[in-house]
Amino acid sequence: MTDYRTLRVALLGAGAVGSQVADLLLKHGDELADRAGAKLELAGIAVRDVDAKRDADLPRELFTTDAETLIVGSDIVIELMGGIEPARTQVLHAIASGADVVTANKALLATHGSEVFEAADQVGAEVYYEAAAAGAIPIIRPLRDSLAGDRVVRIMGIVNGTTNYILDRMDTEGADFEGVLAQAQALGYAEADPTADVEGYDAAQKAAILASLAFHTTVPLDAVHREGITSVDAAMIESARHAGYVIKLLAVCERLAAEDGGTESISVRVYPALVERTHPLASVHGANNAVFVQAEAAGDLMFYGAGAGGVQTASAVLGDVVSAARRHIAGGVGVGESTRANLPAVPIGRVITRYQITLEVDDQPGVLATVAGILSEGRVSIATVEQTVIEADENTRTGGSARLVIGTHKAREQDLSETVERLAASGVVERVVSVLRVEGN
Amino acid sequence: MTDYRTLRVALLGAGAVGSQVADLLLKHGDELADRAGAKLELAGIAVRDVDAKRDADLPRELFTTDAETLIVGSDIVIELMGGIEPARTQVLHAIASGADVVTANKALLATHGSEVFEAADQVGAEVYYEAAAAGAIPIIRPLRDSLAGDRVVRIMGIVNGTTNYILDRMDTEGADFEGVLAQAQALGYAEADPTADVEGYDAAQKAAILASLAFHTTVPLDAVHREGITSVDAAMIESARHAGYVIKLLAVCERLAAEDGGTESISVRVYPALVERTHPLASVHGANNAVFVQAEAAGDLMFYGAGAGGVQTASAVLGDVVSAARRHIAGGVGVGESTRANLPAVPIGRVITRYQITLEVDDQPGVLATVAGILSEGRVSIATVEQTVIEADENTRTGGSARLVIGTHKAREQDLSETVERLAASGVVERVVSVLRVEGN
Repeated sequence: MTDYRTLRVALLGAGAVGSQVADLLLKHGDELADRAGAKLELAGIAVRDVDAKRDADLPRELFTTDAETLIVGSDIVIELMGGIEPARTQVLHAIASGADVVTANKALLATHGSEVFEAADQVGAEVYYEAAAAGAIPIIRPLRDSLAGDRVVRIMGIVNGTTNYILDRMDTEGADFEGVLAQAQALGYAEADPTADVEGYDAAQKAAILASLAFHTTVPLDAVHREGITSVDAAMIESARHAGYVIKLLAVCERLAAEDGGTESISVRVYPALVERTHPLASVHGANNAVFVQAEAAGDLMFYGAGAGGVQTASAVLGDVVSAARRHIAGGVGVGESTRANLPAVPIGRVITRYQITLEVDDQPGVLATVAGILSEGRVSIATVEQTVIEADENTRTGGSARLVIGTHKAREQDLSETVERLAASGVVERVVSVLRVEGN
Repeated sequence: MTDYRTLRVALLGAGAVGSQVADLLLKHGDELADRAGAKLELAGIAVRDVDAKRDADLPRELFTTDAETLIVGSDIVIELMGGIEPARTQVLHAIASGADVVTANKALLATHGSEVFEAADQVGAEVYYEAAAAGAIPIIRPLRDSLAGDRVVRIMGIVNGTTNYILDRMDTEGADFEGVLAQAQALGYAEADPTADVEGYDAAQKAAILASLAFHTTVPLDAVHREGITSVDAAMIESARHAGYVIKLLAVCERLAAEDGGTESISVRVYPALVERTHPLASVHGANNAVFVQAEAAGDLMFYGAGAGGVQTASAVLGDVVSAARRHIAGGVGVGESTRANLPAVPIGRVITRYQITLEVDDQPGVLATVAGILSEGRVSIATVEQTVIEADENTRTGGSARLVIGTHKAREQDLSETVERLAASGVVERVVSVLRVEGN
């Protein structure tokens, strides 16, 4: 074997991902050295409990509870603790000690990304985070580098495996949310406390990271509009299917044209949306992830793969470790993130998309005219209407109910939500069953 | 605007891609400067004929026929001339002059890649070529960097848009090769001389580049087994459909396990293959490209997008230009390609895959037994057999003919081809209609 320079690697955390990273680093050491041009010496693994059970069989002498001491003198620090603290403190400590940082911590980057990147810039260090946006799918480098000469117009990402698994099962089996969630928990696809996944918090963190890269703009987490999938029921999925759609939890990052002499802006949002069944995203099944990117010059691109899993995510982490090692060998300072475009993020009310509105209305003459009138006043233009009679019990009621499924042309969210409020209060609408956005261009 | 350092960019070639690159560089100059951290000054465009018509409206004073002088003093040289010479000479001249090189020239890299990369290594320059492997699809950085900590097991790529367009039309319309090729030529999807595409030369060059990156090994073009699609006819496509397959021209790059105490090896091959209709590659339509990657840790990944087109490819080129500029600002030497794994490429005879063999045989008792016996002797194991009678004209012949479609288990190509020869000479086989590999494992 070539006589390589040795780089000292510190690992913080030995959970599902961390133990796989350690295992692969030890197992493929020679091969990784050949690729990196440097020997990667795993100096230690900082954990809370040295005796905890791990997913891989790792030498006990590598473990320590003293992360701070381990970090000092390391060339590369891999942070896989997750959560904000003590991860934030240790990452800043690593940067201050002169190390490059590799992290999969989306919560940290989505909330304290600017602080971390600025600290790295000041000392010429680099922060790698391929594993933080879509697990094993290489999406960071494509956005950060490959598309750096293009203008990203829109990203639609299925970036949360748990919710895609749940929605996919609901779609295939006609099952309801709670039943599938329970199954997913039993199979290990969902956590005991599923809030971060099903309420869209995880997807929103990833959306903030993707939008930052795509638009060269710092996107704070609170600029991301977020809705989860807990209100999606079997009837909505069936109705979507009937209209040629499937429901997916999408992270949408969109560049909006300048208005009235202003600048361009962006919208970043996470919600369950209708996607046409012929769209490439519709065929992303199970716990898989995919990121669909539209760019001005490159056109449509899609990146598909496993969005989570210990060993899959370890692949992305180790790719970053090799990149960091190569940069150490090559010399030079870290390039840092390009956030100079600095586009403002607009509130959800300014988003323009298509909608599907499902209403239960009195089955009376003139009701459709009333509904159409309210939509028209509200600047919401109708593309399709389908009306089906639900019941018409002559003994108990004068008229039965009808279900109206209205597909709209593109409308502004603000106009749409005000219009739906007026519909609800109109007297002819018995119930607003659902309002879903339609995404896909 | 920030006061950036200016980097001098020389462009060689102003064809479909080159003129779009120049146009975008001029149009989005400020935005690109913000992303690169450097002003990118287009110093000139070297062409053969200054007065030729271009796809974009470019300032006449930028054009020159003197590439050599233009190159001197440039920080980044973009080579979009195509072909081996004078591209090779100018690229080496650029490297020797201290420039980083961006190229989309797959022919040059597949035949003289080692020479170019070694020249760059010696002076610490970097060669970028995202546009050389799959047009606008970011695949170089994912393979080179994101998966650098993983072990790629197999790549299956649809990397030639022309042949995918032709095969897709044949599949959808039941049309024959010549008719669709003529249509494709009329629509501009195929060249007047379609040899490079339909004979698989273009795909073979891209396969060599992808395999080099995936396996960290220098893969010379002549190590790539190549077959084109000219022998694919409507009957083969119909028969494939009947069996649940679609025919795609695939670039397959595969890691083979060590045998008999030897080392691992690789196989790189381009041929029309049967792909199951449920495989993600089966839904890649029209002139689109996709690269399906299987890695030990990351699992299955797919990268999808436009494989060609002037402006799409320009996106990939400009991404490289921004990367090169960032590297100039950051300092340090080029990292170079990692080819230290140095895996030997095996001849096609050692490939192991599944096959579909279609035979016309005498419709006589005992024929199937004879065929099965020859396959068994040849160590080719049968998975499925379907027999259909073709004709049985009692007046002219004792027995009619039957068509046998045999799906095999995995077999060694050497064994398979010897077995097919024995079948052809057996007396009971009237005609070997087709032998197709089945990929997708």
